Amino acid sequence: MNPHIAPVPLDKAFRLINHGPTILVSARHGGVDNVMAASWACALDYAPPKLTVVLDKIASTRELVEQSGGFVIQVPTVAQLDLTYQVGHRSLAEQPDKLARSGVELFNIDGHEQPFVAGCSAWLACRVMPEPHNQDRYDLFIGEIVGAWADTRVFSHGHWNFETADPSWRSLHYIAGGRFYAIGEAKNAHPATSA
Amino acid sequence: MNPHIAPVPLDKAFRLINHGPTILVSARHGGVDNVMAASWACALDYAPPKLTVVLDKIASTRELVEQSGGFVIQVPTVAQLDLTYQVGHRSLAEQPDKLARSGVELFNIDGHEQPFVAGCSAWLACRVMPEPHNQDRYDLFIGEIVGAWADTRVFSHGHWNFETADPSWRSLHYIAGGRFYAIGEAKNAHPATSA
Repeated sequence: MNPHIAPVPLDKAFRLINHGPTILVSARHGGVDNVMAASWACALDYAPPKLTVVLDKIASTRELVEQSGGFVIQVPTVAQLDLTYQVGHRSLAEQPDKLARSGVELFNIDGHEQPFVAGCSAWLACRVMPEPHNQDRYDLFIGEIVGAWADTRVFSHGHWNFETADPSWRSLHYIAGGRFYAIGEAKNAHPATSA
Repeated sequence: MNPHIAPVPLDKAFRLINHGPTILVSARHGGVDNVMAASWACALDYAPPKLTVVLDKIASTRELVEQSGGFVIQVPTVAQLDLTYQVGHRSLAEQPDKLARSGVELFNIDGHEQPFVAGCSAWLACRVMPEPHNQDRYDLFIGEIVGAWADTRVFSHGHWNFETADPSWRSLHYIAGGRFYAIGEAKNAHPATSA
């Protein structure tokens, strides 16, 4: 594993997606790996940490998630702009070599069955908390976060360092039609005073 | 109403929050208005448009949402950095003048019962789709988006114009501890080719 990748304490895992980045969902079952892009993923709870992700019924990745009961949410970077867009628009059913065509390289982490996408800034290994009504009616999946990691070149000691890391590490925030925004400047709020 | 505020077609409403901004939730019931900040809001469907938002059981705004069956999700700007942080950390129960102290000004939109926060860049009026299991177990609320508006100085013709609007219009993306990031540069992906 890349020596820059370090575990993130589970009580800080929400910080990896709290700023609303577009994410990649990866899953594996029966020897098949797939990766898709999704904008509709969101933290749900701190402890135990949970998140939601919307997986359309036509997505091949959804089948792997349902079959294996697990998935990884990872945060792609500006350097992975085209990769992110392409895995979101190619179908494994139509292009069996989708991952290679899109430039995706996978790696494994000991103790976890799911595939992880190399080059991302952060990874959240998740176990599906079965909620058949949500999955059927809303395509909404709830995952318990069972492992978290980040690349220390952009996230360390519980904090994102977008403002000091190379700009190619910034997270992507999708709108529509191939248009993303990178995350921008840090802003520190002034707390409410009791006066 | 501010003459810069224009309706957004409901089929493009998801674009107002697709990039994962921190949002403000406002609600009204029995003559009481409240506003809270939330990072955990996310689009859920295109048509009819829906979204999810996590509302903790201790939040006064949650009671107003449950009682009235409606709420507004709005997108605050860099100009509203302190307002956003303060409505997220003040409690109406402890400070009845929370909104005034935090600098919140409300306005109404004809045909909608809920209060809207002035100065934001976009607004989504929502009707609660009751899902008691999700609300009780996960604090997760599903809203159908029944009206959408944006300030044309930063969102027009279905597109955000962060790169040309004044930087004070940029959306906020919260991490933790008073630290936000503003949205940054536009990035256009290259589509997948079939070759």
